[in-house]
Amino acid sequence: MAVEPFDVVDLIRTKRDRGELSTPQIDWLVDAYTRGYVADEQMAAMAMAIFLNGMERREIKDLTLAMIASGETMEFGGLGKATTDKHSTGGVGDKITLPLAPLVASFGVAVPQLSGRGLGHTGGTLDKLESIPGWQASISNERMQEILRDVGAVVCAAGSGLAPADGKLYALRDITGTVECIPLIASSIMSKKIAEGTGALVLDVKFGSGAFIKDQAVSRRLAETMVQLGADAGVATTALLTDMSVPLGLTIGNALEVRESMEVLAGGGPADVVELTVALAREMLALAGLPDADVEGHLASGKAMDSWRAMIAAQGGDPDGTLPVAPETHVVTAPRSGVLASQEALPFGIAAWRLGAGRARKQDPVIHSAGIELHVKPGDAVVEGQPLFTLHAEDAARFERALESVEGAWSIADSAEPRGPLVADRITAG
Amino acid sequence: MAVEPFDVVDLIRTKRDRGELSTPQIDWLVDAYTRGYVADEQMAAMAMAIFLNGMERREIKDLTLAMIASGETMEFGGLGKATTDKHSTGGVGDKITLPLAPLVASFGVAVPQLSGRGLGHTGGTLDKLESIPGWQASISNERMQEILRDVGAVVCAAGSGLAPADGKLYALRDITGTVECIPLIASSIMSKKIAEGTGALVLDVKFGSGAFIKDQAVSRRLAETMVQLGADAGVATTALLTDMSVPLGLTIGNALEVRESMEVLAGGGPADVVELTVALAREMLALAGLPDADVEGHLASGKAMDSWRAMIAAQGGDPDGTLPVAPETHVVTAPRSGVLASQEALPFGIAAWRLGAGRARKQDPVIHSAGIELHVKPGDAVVEGQPLFTLHAEDAARFERALESVEGAWSIADSAEPRGPLVADRITAG
Repeated sequence: MAVEPFDVVDLIRTKRDRGELSTPQIDWLVDAYTRGYVADEQMAAMAMAIFLNGMERREIKDLTLAMIASGETMEFGGLGKATTDKHSTGGVGDKITLPLAPLVASFGVAVPQLSGRGLGHTGGTLDKLESIPGWQASISNERMQEILRDVGAVVCAAGSGLAPADGKLYALRDITGTVECIPLIASSIMSKKIAEGTGALVLDVKFGSGAFIKDQAVSRRLAETMVQLGADAGVATTALLTDMSVPLGLTIGNALEVRESMEVLAGGGPADVVELTVALAREMLALAGLPDADVEGHLASGKAMDSWRAMIAAQGGDPDGTLPVAPETHVVTAPRSGVLASQEALPFGIAAWRLGAGRARKQDPVIHSAGIELHVKPGDAVVEGQPLFTLHAEDAARFERALESVEGAWSIADSAEPRGPLVADRITAG
Repeated sequence: MAVEPFDVVDLIRTKRDRGELSTPQIDWLVDAYTRGYVADEQMAAMAMAIFLNGMERREIKDLTLAMIASGETMEFGGLGKATTDKHSTGGVGDKITLPLAPLVASFGVAVPQLSGRGLGHTGGTLDKLESIPGWQASISNERMQEILRDVGAVVCAAGSGLAPADGKLYALRDITGTVECIPLIASSIMSKKIAEGTGALVLDVKFGSGAFIKDQAVSRRLAETMVQLGADAGVATTALLTDMSVPLGLTIGNALEVRESMEVLAGGGPADVVELTVALAREMLALAGLPDADVEGHLASGKAMDSWRAMIAAQGGDPDGTLPVAPETHVVTAPRSGVLASQEALPFGIAAWRLGAGRARKQDPVIHSAGIELHVKPGDAVVEGQPLFTLHAEDAARFERALESVEGAWSIADSAEPRGPLVADRITAG
């Protein structure tokens, strides 16, 4: 039996008493936890101690690198082109990956986008793309390399071999009340992204009612921590701090969001989706060495759409396939004339989830056609009787609970407060 | 399947965010943990949150009562006499229960002393008494009632049916770095003592190098918390805050400590052991309604010794039996003349443990004859060549590591700092 170099109780006590864990201690802790020598109850106590006492920048880097080292890493050095990836902390109506990945790829940059599925009110990119007939999320590593070389953009499921320590720790945090903790969130996100082998990374860190972290100051600290961490780990990282208090775009729900994304790729689409797609594309392309790329030009010219069609086809999807349409709709109209004064992201996200767009448990299916179409956004003038939003479902029985969720989540007034900018700030290293 | 009234993650978050847990929440948490619905990793996160964020007096009371309710409780109401118990937080050479229980019983008060075994450098009362030929720690509840009625004092092993939630939580705290936490220590000690059914309780809360809690201010807070808790739970409780920086008495080790205890019961013995025995007996007798009992008289007259002989015989022991004697001894003498300036409890406790007096793992046996005899105490004048202490072991090979432990733990100087009082303070409710 190998002698263990550290006593886990000593390490827990160190963090409990506001001390710092050394690099060898963190390396050992993550390794010993992955192989089951450190028990879940010990890691739970450690996670709570980290939650309450924090971690230094060096410790967060060490934790991230140790989680990367717990599994395999991907390597795109042989592609002969720059790679860059985007990660969003998640929100309501956040379909940005769909237009963004092919847009950036249309400039000859590789975008290896390993994505997840939705849980609760936040949607998952894989669920959205699975609305497209034939499209497959699971592809082999070899096929992934081929698509990145030939098409440039790939969106697929992350294998469980990447950062398995993070997978184990995340599941533990979920049941022990230790999720909302910047060092643990930052190391979790960044360990997966760095293990994916991207050369550069752009983060979309959201705040507001529909975001995982509602408070803008806390989101900023998370963004700063992750940007520092990227720099420390040798992956150039930029973050945009973006407003998620109102749903992004005019659609919430899988097939509805694919349709809207295709509008953006066709040179149209809602202003906020276009704005954020363009802003993130500029950041990704700048990190890939193309700071002056004509991003709007590729949307207008159809080059981004060509890239999308190739990306969808490469994973078995039919770019001209018919997207599913819900058989039942329910329209909510304006009870008076005025201006739409509010439209809160979280209740609308929950409503879409209740309509079937999201899942309550990991193993549940999603209903691709379900969701919400918004006809107006805050600040828009409305006249009495005008449609405000339409619910889409396979079963009209779902409307009642969805309507309960949005009750009080929108309002019409004589005037609306001006909204803050969608991109509140840009955070770079150093 | 019964619907659970609370979500454990919500409760963990409440404590994590410095909130208070309600009485129904604490009742449910302890019950759900006992039956395994709340997992160890969840309770570990909760214990760390309690460690770092504390508990209000009302929460500590609720936790204690919930742990008592997790198992059976004892009842001595049918005895027709007052019951009173003593608990010590443990120390080096702490044999006080041995003279104390029969001394108090000699006044017609019942002393149901449920004790534990030693682990690490602190000895256990049951281990000490098992030095006596024939003496048995395990007795039935019926026999315990008989002895309490006929003899008055019983020292036996606590059954696992008392406060099982505490047993489970204590084992978890031990491996998760959440031991040294006043709300958890206080509720652990008091839940067991209250479940034992005593009518009143005297606590010997120690501080100094040989104590579990070294810092006097922290020990005082623990004592105050437990005294309040006794009052809240309806068990009259008094605490003495006592110095454990120097070993108690002149012996450390099981049979050696029994011999010293019998000297005290015979009206002699070291001054500090007599002082603490008398002080604790006065407190116990006062709580039992006998504030003016002639405690010293019962030591001098042999009444306490008669009570001891009856107590030992009642549990199968031979009060005149020969105590085991170690075949090997090693004497350490004074290298110069002067005054013994220091004699640190912890290193002497560890040395006795290394000689075989204590155990490293729960399942290990102890060697009853092993230990240390002290010939001088701090402040005593010594002449060069005079014996300072004698090590006792079954195997001379054990001396080396025991001597390593006490190296630097004692010193001779031209003069010694005056020692503080043995009983530093007395803490009562209200």
